[in-house]
Amino acid sequence: MARVVVSVMPKAEILDPQGQAIVRALPRLGFDGVTEVRQGKRFELEVDDAIDDATLAKIAESFLANTVIEEWTVTRVDGGE
Amino acid sequence: MARVVVSVMPKAEILDPQGQAIVRALPRLGFDGVTEVRQGKRFELEVDDAIDDATLAKIAESFLANTVIEEWTVTRVDGGE
Repeated sequence: MARVVVSVMPKAEILDPQGQAIVRALPRLGFDGVTEVRQGKRFELEVDDAIDDATLAKIAESFLANTVIEEWTVTRVDGGE
Repeated sequence: MARVVVSVMPKAEILDPQGQAIVRALPRLGFDGVTEVRQGKRFELEVDDAIDDATLAKIAESFLANTVIEEWTVTRVDGGE
């Protein structure tokens, strides 16, 4: 078994209203100095060792991310990230 | 400026219906061998260098995560993760 992390983030040119809401809220809560926040998704998968990187890329691209507005990365982690 | 990634994941003992829906859908789509999926959130922050780890932990704990059902990690990344 292998542990895989798929990160899905809004593309840089795409407006991220959730992230913007967080940036605006932080000073009100007393936290200054955060200039940008973007919010995306993180998937942690347990996969058979037989699954190769091409298959993982296909899962991320076709199923976990909306590639019109999101970019994705696949990372294999060994023993926790 | 520093780049910080905050990962927020459902706690192990908490049911994750989104992740379970993904696990069940993958075989129908022709992807076998994924035995577990958990879905969480990933935040990418741009912060001033003056912000210390304790402040980042406070932001993650009090604002980005619901610590009743979620666990969080803060990672400083230099030049992309």
